Parts: sequence; structure tokens; C-alpha cells
Amino acid sequence: MIPENHPRYHSLIVREQLVRCAKEGIVTLEGLTAHGRGEAFDYLMGEQTSPSALQAEKIAAALLLTADHPVISVNGNTAALAARMIAGLQMASRASVEVNLFHRTDERITKITRLLEEQGVRVLKGEAKRLLPLLHERALCLPGGIGSADVILVPLEDGDRCQALHSLGKKVITIDLNPLSRTAQSADLTIVDEVTRALPLITTFCRELDQEEAKTLSTGYDNKIIRKAALDEIIRRLTHALD
Amino acid sequence: MIPENHPRYHSLIVREQLVRCAKEGIVTLEGLTAHGRGEAFDYLMGEQTSPSALQAEKIAAALLLTADHPVISVNGNTAALAARMIAGLQMASRASVEVNLFHRTDERITKITRLLEEQGVRVLKGEAKRLLPLLHERALCLPGGIGSADVILVPLEDGDRCQALHSLGKKVITIDLNPLSRTAQSADLTIVDEVTRALPLITTFCRELDQEEAKTLSTGYDNKIIRKAALDEIIRRLTHALD
Repeated sequence: MIPENHPRYHSLIVREQLVRCAKEGIVTLEGLTAHGRGEAFDYLMGEQTSPSALQAEKIAAALLLTADHPVISVNGNTAALAARMIAGLQMASRASVEVNLFHRTDERITKITRLLEEQGVRVLKGEAKRLLPLLHERALCLPGGIGSADVILVPLEDGDRCQALHSLGKKVITIDLNPLSRTAQSADLTIVDEVTRALPLITTFCRELDQEEAKTLSTGYDNKIIRKAALDEIIRRLTHALD
Repeated sequence: MIPENHPRYHSLIVREQLVRCAKEGIVTLEGLTAHGRGEAFDYLMGEQTSPSALQAEKIAAALLLTADHPVISVNGNTAALAARMIAGLQMASRASVEVNLFHRTDERITKITRLLEEQGVRVLKGEAKRLLPLLHERALCLPGGIGSADVILVPLEDGDRCQALHSLGKKVITIDLNPLSRTAQSADLTIVDEVTRALPLITTFCRELDQEEAKTLSTGYDNKIIRKAALDEIIRRLTHALD
């Protein structure tokens, strides 16, 4: 048991949850190392939402609200960490939810779909087609989901996948704690925040924004400035770390 | 297969090796997330040995060479990544090698011992006793190994373990990619480098240093300055990352 007063309580609880889901086959072993990378960057961000991340979350809400066909793409790590939060965001944003896996097997798709549905997510189903410019199973997605999305939220996404989606002209929003990753660099909007902090904040903004505010926000941002602000926050913290 | 010209080839090969060892029960699932954290910090260090890390590796060799009873403590991740390198360092430093696990089971001790022996390591055996000021199995170590060591190299160690060893008056050398971790802070010498780069370099220095040089180096260093140099290297790289 992790004591509740441990300074890194939340981070350790999240890690335990992920290890449990790895034992159940929902999270892959590669997903565990990816989570560790995220933990390190979150540690550098002080394990809290920075002002620039909060602004990115507001813009993400605006992009989802003004989209014709918004889709949330959910992988194993996201489902393991945030299934209930995905349900909340789906309700507030009216986005479709598609399960989309880097290490895709029918068994994992089924398990993750079940986990999401148990937490109240309505999960898109159908026959996946090779619609993305990627090799093998990584090209697969649903024609009525990611295939026809104009705005797509991909938390914790691989760089190749993010680039492929972007190359199809879709507006890609990612949640990625490394502001220098290929995912962060190829997305149209990069939220440098931990996924279980980011999703509820996007949901709150979806409920608060009116159409006019959403329209203004969705067109008037510069993702380079947002990424730069996240990097500056890390540098600022490191510079004072040994004071 | 990872193509050899991939810019992060070495890092990806290392990760695959670790995932393989996790499937065999040598590496724990928590060990995979810990490795991911290391990957993130190594990425920030440019995945290369910094000048200050090289100096720390030279001092580590000096500490091992001038010790009365040097011990290398090996855990699952270290065995998985660097069994053969441990054999080389043992030969050059004449240190004892003890298997010491955070998630200790007889089965893992046996598997890791076998892996090390297959790669030429002579592994200390005997009946472990509760010698460290820690709870449960974490207190266990060998009276003729870590129990009586004056200098101990603990690559990739947990913060509590590192502090416990230090509190017993042992000189603790750690290899840890996060210069701000509790392990890095409580060690007597912190090598901020990736373990498979660090171990062969320490081995080379063990072969090159004479007793006089070793004695001078082992007493004339300041670990705060070494850690600060590693942190400065990360800050320098981040500051130019978006140039």
C-alpha cells in the first residue's frame, strides 16, 4: 500500500493501475516503458498542469466543439488510466470514440472496448480498413470513425501515427508530456500534461465555452509557442532544482 | 526488426532486450516503467556520455580499486541489460557481485544468478540476513557481501535502498540518469549515464589507473559538483532544443 501522504502518491497510484492492466493484457510491456518516459517528463513539470498546458486544454475543447466530426482515439494506456474520464469527455464534446492500437490484436481490442464500455463510453465498432499511410495493422481504422474525422484527439500517441493522421489533413490534438517528441512536433495542438489531469480539464472547458468563444480560440493559436512555453517551464524548474 | 540506421537504434535494442527479460520473469513490470524513466532522461542527455559522467566513471574505478571490500549489487534490470559487462567489471575491479532485488523472490534470485553466471560472473551465495535498516525482504543481504562492503556500486537503485546503504557508512556509487532522484542525491558518487555505456567505461578505467592515481581521485571529488554538471548539461541541451 502506498501511504496517502507520500509526496508522489498520485504518480505511484497511476503506475500501479497500469501494472495491473499490463497483467490483464490491456497494456503492453512497451506501454509500460512509454509510461515511464511520461513519468520522467511529468516529474520535470512538477507533476502539475502548467499555465500553457491549461491554455492548450481550453483550445482543445474549442477544436472539439467546432469540429464536424470529432473523434477520440483510445489506446491501451489511455484506457487503463482514464476510461471514466473518456466517458466524461465524450458526453461533453459529443465526440466519437474509437479504439486504436499500435500493438493491435483482436483480443486487445475486445478487452479495451469492454473496459471502456464498463465505464460508460460508447465505443465505435465496425470493420477496420487500411486507411492510414502506415505499414501492416498500423494502417487500420474505422471508415466512420478516424477515417472521416476532421478533428482527432490522440492521447499518448506514437510519432508515426500522429504524422500519418496529420498527413491526411486531419487536425490532430495530442497529449504528450515530452514537448520535443515527434508526436508533439507533428501535432496541430500539443497538450504537454499528464493524461489524467488533462482530460477532465478539457471536459470542463467543453462545458464552459460558448460557440463564439470556441470559434475564436480554435483559429487563433500557435502550437510552436505552446510547445516552447512547456519547454521553458521545464528549463525554469531544472534551473532552480539545486537551489 | 529495428533498422540499424534508426537514429535511436541502441535505445530501441536495449528496450527490446528488457521487454524480453520481463517475459522471462527476470525484469519486473515496475522495472519496465523505471527503465522508461531512464530512457527519458537519457534522451535529454543526448544518449551519450557527458564529460562530467566520464569523470565520475573514472572516480568510480578509483573507489573500487582502493576499497578493501568492493561489492557490485546487481538487480533485475542491470542483469538484463549488462550481465556480460558486470563480468568484465568484476574481472578488472576484483569486486564481489551480489544479486540484490527490490522485488525479491527466490525464483527471481535463481533466474538472475543463472543469467549472470552464463555470462561469466562469479556470484556470491549464502544465507541472506536482515542487515539493512529497511522493512521486509528489502533488508536482506549477504553478511559476506553487501553486509561487509566498504564500497558498493549499485546501478539503477531505488532511493530507500541507496539511503539505507549510505546510513551504514558504506561508500555508495550509483548509476542513475536522473541527477535529481533521491538515489542520485543520497549516493556518495553519482554517475549520470546509461548503464550499458557506464559499466565498460568504469572497467577501462579500472585497467588504466595505477594505485597512486586511484588514491588521489578517490578522495578529491565533490559529488554535488558532479550532479550539478549533469543537470547543467540537460539544461544546455533543452535550451537549444528548439533552435
